[in-house]
Amino acid sequence: MLKGIPRIISPELLKILCEMGHGDTLVIADGNFPAASLSSKLITLSGHGSIAVLEAILELFPLDEAPITQIGVMETADQSKPEIWEAYAKHATELVPIERYAFYEKAKNAYCIIATSESALYANAILTKGVL
Amino acid sequence: MLKGIPRIISPELLKILCEMGHGDTLVIADGNFPAASLSSKLITLSGHGSIAVLEAILELFPLDEAPITQIGVMETADQSKPEIWEAYAKHATELVPIERYAFYEKAKNAYCIIATSESALYANAILTKGVL
Amino acid sequence: MLKGIPRIISPELLKILCEMGHGDTLVIADGNFPAASLSSKLITLSGHGSIAVLEAILELFPLDEAPITQIGVMETADQSKPEIWEAYAKHATELVPIERYAFYEKAKNAYCIIATSESALYANAILTKGVL
Amino acid sequence: MLKGIPRIISPELLKILCEMGHGDTLVIADGNFPAASLSSKLITLSGHGSIAVLEAILELFPLDEAPITQIGVMETADQSKPEIWEAYAKHATELVPIERYAFYEKAKNAYCIIATSESALYANAILTKGVL
Amino acid sequence: MLKGIPRIISPELLKILCEMGHGDTLVIADGNFPAASLSSKLITLSGHGSIAVLEAILELFPLDEAPITQIGVMETADQSKPEIWEAYAKHATELVPIERYAFYEKAKNAYCIIATSESALYANAILTKGVL
Amino acid sequence: MLKGIPRIISPELLKILCEMGHGDTLVIADGNFPAASLSSKLITLSGHGSIAVLEAILELFPLDEAPITQIGVMETADQSKPEIWEAYAKHATELVPIERYAFYEKAKNAYCIIATSESALYANAILTKGVL
Amino acid sequence: MLKGIPRIISPELLKILCEMGHGDTLVIADGNFPAASLSSKLITLSGHGSIAVLEAILELFPLDEAPITQIGVMETADQSKPEIWEAYAKHATELVPIERYAFYEKAKNAYCIIATSESALYANAILTKGVL
Amino acid sequence: MLKGIPRIISPELLKILCEMGHGDTLVIADGNFPAASLSSKLITLSGHGSIAVLEAILELFPLDEAPITQIGVMETADQSKPEIWEAYAKHATELVPIERYAFYEKAKNAYCIIATSESALYANAILTKGVL
Amino acid sequence: MLKGIPRIISPELLKILCEMGHGDTLVIADGNFPAASLSSKLITLSGHGSIAVLEAILELFPLDEAPITQIGVMETADQSKPEIWEAYAKHATELVPIERYAFYEKAKNAYCIIATSESALYANAILTKGVL
Amino acid sequence: MLKGIPRIISPELLKILCEMGHGDTLVIADGNFPAASLSSKLITLSGHGSIAVLEAILELFPLDEAPITQIGVMETADQSKPEIWEAYAKHATELVPIERYAFYEKAKNAYCIIATSESALYANAILTKGVL
Repeated sequence: MLKGIPRIISPELLKILCEMGHGDTLVIADGNFPAASLSSKLITLSGHGSIAVLEAILELFPLDEAPITQIGVMETADQSKPEIWEAYAKHATELVPIERYAFYEKAKNAYCIIATSESALYANAILTKGVL
Repeated sequence: MLKGIPRIISPELLKILCEMGHGDTLVIADGNFPAASLSSKLITLSGHGSIAVLEAILELFPLDEAPITQIGVMETADQSKPEIWEAYAKHATELVPIERYAFYEKAKNAYCIIATSESALYANAILTKGVL
Repeated sequence: MLKGIPRIISPELLKILCEMGHGDTLVIADGNFPAASLSSKLITLSGHGSIAVLEAILELFPLDEAPITQIGVMETADQSKPEIWEAYAKHATELVPIERYAFYEKAKNAYCIIATSESALYANAILTKGVL
Repeated sequence: MLKGIPRIISPELLKILCEMGHGDTLVIADGNFPAASLSSKLITLSGHGSIAVLEAILELFPLDEAPITQIGVMETADQSKPEIWEAYAKHATELVPIERYAFYEKAKNAYCIIATSESALYANAILTKGVL
Repeated sequence: MLKGIPRIISPELLKILCEMGHGDTLVIADGNFPAASLSSKLITLSGHGSIAVLEAILELFPLDEAPITQIGVMETADQSKPEIWEAYAKHATELVPIERYAFYEKAKNAYCIIATSESALYANAILTKGVL
Repeated sequence: MLKGIPRIISPELLKILCEMGHGDTLVIADGNFPAASLSSKLITLSGHGSIAVLEAILELFPLDEAPITQIGVMETADQSKPEIWEAYAKHATELVPIERYAFYEKAKNAYCIIATSESALYANAILTKGVL
Repeated sequence: MLKGIPRIISPELLKILCEMGHGDTLVIADGNFPAASLSSKLITLSGHGSIAVLEAILELFPLDEAPITQIGVMETADQSKPEIWEAYAKHATELVPIERYAFYEKAKNAYCIIATSESALYANAILTKGVL
Repeated sequence: MLKGIPRIISPELLKILCEMGHGDTLVIADGNFPAASLSSKLITLSGHGSIAVLEAILELFPLDEAPITQIGVMETADQSKPEIWEAYAKHATELVPIERYAFYEKAKNAYCIIATSESALYANAILTKGVL
Repeated sequence: MLKGIPRIISPELLKILCEMGHGDTLVIADGNFPAASLSSKLITLSGHGSIAVLEAILELFPLDEAPITQIGVMETADQSKPEIWEAYAKHATELVPIERYAFYEKAKNAYCIIATSESALYANAILTKGVL
Repeated sequence: MLKGIPRIISPELLKILCEMGHGDTLVIADGNFPAASLSSKLITLSGHGSIAVLEAILELFPLDEAPITQIGVMETADQSKPEIWEAYAKHATELVPIERYAFYEKAKNAYCIIATSESALYANAILTKGVL
């Protein structure tokens, strides 16, 4: 634990957030996301929901200035908007829906995937780090 | 995630609990415990309190039948009883206080230390797995 | 060993099943399948048949909701249906035969291959994990 | 799989049995034995009982000629003789009971511990390889 | 050493032969073959000829049933037939000559290359494991 | 880089500071200290002086409450007080001089040694993390 | 530390500079560059600006003789010239602006990326080692 | 050191020369060659010239019988012939000049690159091992 | 393979023999010796007898000049002299018998143990390298 | 290669010399010294004599100021002084002879052992780094 660091952020995740640069992306995965198979770096935050994780991360770094890359979400099959997106939308200029398989491709290239236990469906989000 | 497994239990922790045998011990460490320096195997459950972790583990395995080894706790300097011990006491025949440095020695020999973010002081507990 | 976990599931396999997500696949290989050469993650369950393994896994996670991906089997050269398929068929909406070399390609991309000692021929199956 | 090799013997275990020499020891552990914490080399044969494992191993190598080292078993607290010992006794000149903590020390020095899912209690055995 | 296992088979090679499946290939390389640079798994059997190695392996597993894949040999520049092929030919329906660079490509994809000290030229052979 | 984290703290050091617990120690080594040979975990902060490193660390965690363990320094041969100690003394109740070889022993047991390029002699300090 | 080696050069960086050959490239990355995600070898020099790093490196090796490869910089979106480029320009025949994504590609192929904490934007530089 | 082995050949290099087969290649790199970045296996023979290394190697294995592959050298920009080539030419039927970037490609595929400190320019050579 | 190196010496063994110095010891183990459990470095020469291995090694390095350390052999229980010792005795001033468990202790400290398939009993030998 | 660094110093050795601190020791071993078995870090400088290595190192760091630790040499059996010691003696206040087995103990604790091919006997030296 450290002064000013949210307790939900593990030491390993803190290191990863710190070594990310402008333009690097990070996926906050819900409990059903195939995080282990798609990630090159995997952080497991079992037992936590995705909103708490998102908000802790945003205390530590800004999102990219371009709205299109700030927060992407996984598009639902029927184009509906999951309720959890409302909590995400408070933190970005706009939420950008990304088709499921395109989202998987982006997740493979992300610097890190954080596996949460979020039980809401279609609750995956991909963030781009901004300039400090 | 799996059917019947508490979501707070990460895949890595699940493996460790499963490979432990009768008589192996496990430390649930509070947020100030020197878990990384004392452990040979370390599981980090950042953002969680110790009671939730204890209760999830006890869904998966029984404690040893001998009361003296079921749950040990770290003795306070003034022999007071931290409030959090009451929650632990529900799960064992008795709680066994262990002097601070003796507790550290036991922690070094534990099969695993789980680093939680528990903010209560003297909230460390050491469990012994029983027979299945 | 843990409460409620079939004993045939090793600690390492339990971890793998737990870290798989929606859409990840797993191969249950018969004793003649080239499991070691095709797998990126290999679990060896020597001495066991494939039906016992399949049934233990299905106690732990649901199959994908889409019938086409639930359970795939390796097509025989002469389109015959091995007797062992009947035991598999009880667990899926339908069994989907996959041509031998196509099956190998899918196996390479599976999250895990489990090498059993199943002596029946053409007893390989590929499962897709569903939503929890 | 290979001609003449019992199917319960995994490739990794086969290698270990082959590289053992005269005087090296091997523990067949029951499902409650702390195999992972005591072993330097661990083989997991989940889902199998200990007798099947013992008999498969004895197809592959002879026990030491000295009765005192052929097969040791873990002494029960009340000096009773578990029923499973009868099956073991068929393979050695005599079974040698070893006190629980002395057995743990011998297990630490064994070349390999095989973790089975044997549900009988006090079913642990330690074998010494003989001369080929 | 183990009962019934030819002494020329090292523990590591025994493991590899055991984990190979139907259709996996293995190269027995003569002393001049670039075994270390082409292999993903390399077994070194220095001081041995290739016939002794071939015969020991065939005590442990059958060749594939299809003659075209049983034993391939490296074609000589002048289409001559090296004398050593006669010893190989006793073990297969037919020997299948493979052009030098095509042989190298197959060797790269083999499960294992065994580097012998065989002094005969063009004595390389590639085997395909059959069904047990 | 992260909001609120001094830029001199590398991602790896940030992780280490975060995983340290109450009572763990850390050495800030001057440029001549044998940091690589004594450390189990080594962080290299070439080109920096020790005061800047000390002050950055103290923004992130508190020192232990016991004055005797807050900041130890390496005793000079002639009991003189290096000028640089004045800067250290501002951060602790008292500075505790430790004989050279005793300091080396403590350094071996520290959780981490940070190798700086501090050119002042006898500028080594050992800190103990407090409670958060 | 060594005689004649600038103190900002860590032992690991010194090794890397020494093993680079004619034509190998090295990126000096500013604090916002995605250094960890693009590098195969990463050196972290937290707390330092890029000019000090550049000047220390140039004490140790010459730049390539061809002006086009001596020092490349990351082109700004509006073709403006960041003030920090003036310090870089003193060390090369000319500075060669490279479009942002082309710069990323070159960084992936560089022998090493040095992550500084340089706060100036567009302060990334790529150097090519010359002949000694 | 061993009887009959030139002292300039390190134990690691001796192993590599021994495991190379017919057709494998090896680069003797001059002091400016980007050996570390192009090699999959790197041997560093600092402080030695390339002729001494070449002659020691040729005591241990023959070159390929085909003149075109015996010794290749890196072509100079102006087609001149460096003086050091004369020493190389004594050991091959002919020296085969290879264009600079083609030479780099061949070096990437070599079994080993030996980094010498040869100060002559364009002194790189690529050898092909023959039949023993 | 290399000129002048006996073919029974594998590349890895050749490296080990070359890096041994004056006073380092090496065990040639018979087929029943517990070579894998006692060795820190293990070379497996399956299928070979111990005399051929000894003679190949002595082509490459001299034994120590002190007769007491040249060749030690494992003492038999009844002080008899195995026939194979005669072949060993040709290479040393005298053979020095070493009690079985003392031999095991020396084997643990040897630089390397070579596991042969020698079928003669009490055929283990320990050599000390001399000065070149 | 780098400006001002002797060519005999390899990149790996340069790193090691740079990370050594005041009081760390380094052994320059002659060609017969058991360097590989005694070292925790080994640098091989095959083909070089020990004087050239010593002189290159002393260009890079000073020896300790205490004469007793500057340069130790291995005492000969007959107390004679090998001729090569004269070259060493030029670089230290005095040469300190150390009994053979005491020298081996010091070598085990050295930060690094450099294995040269020095052919002179009793040419081993142990240096202590001073203050920069």
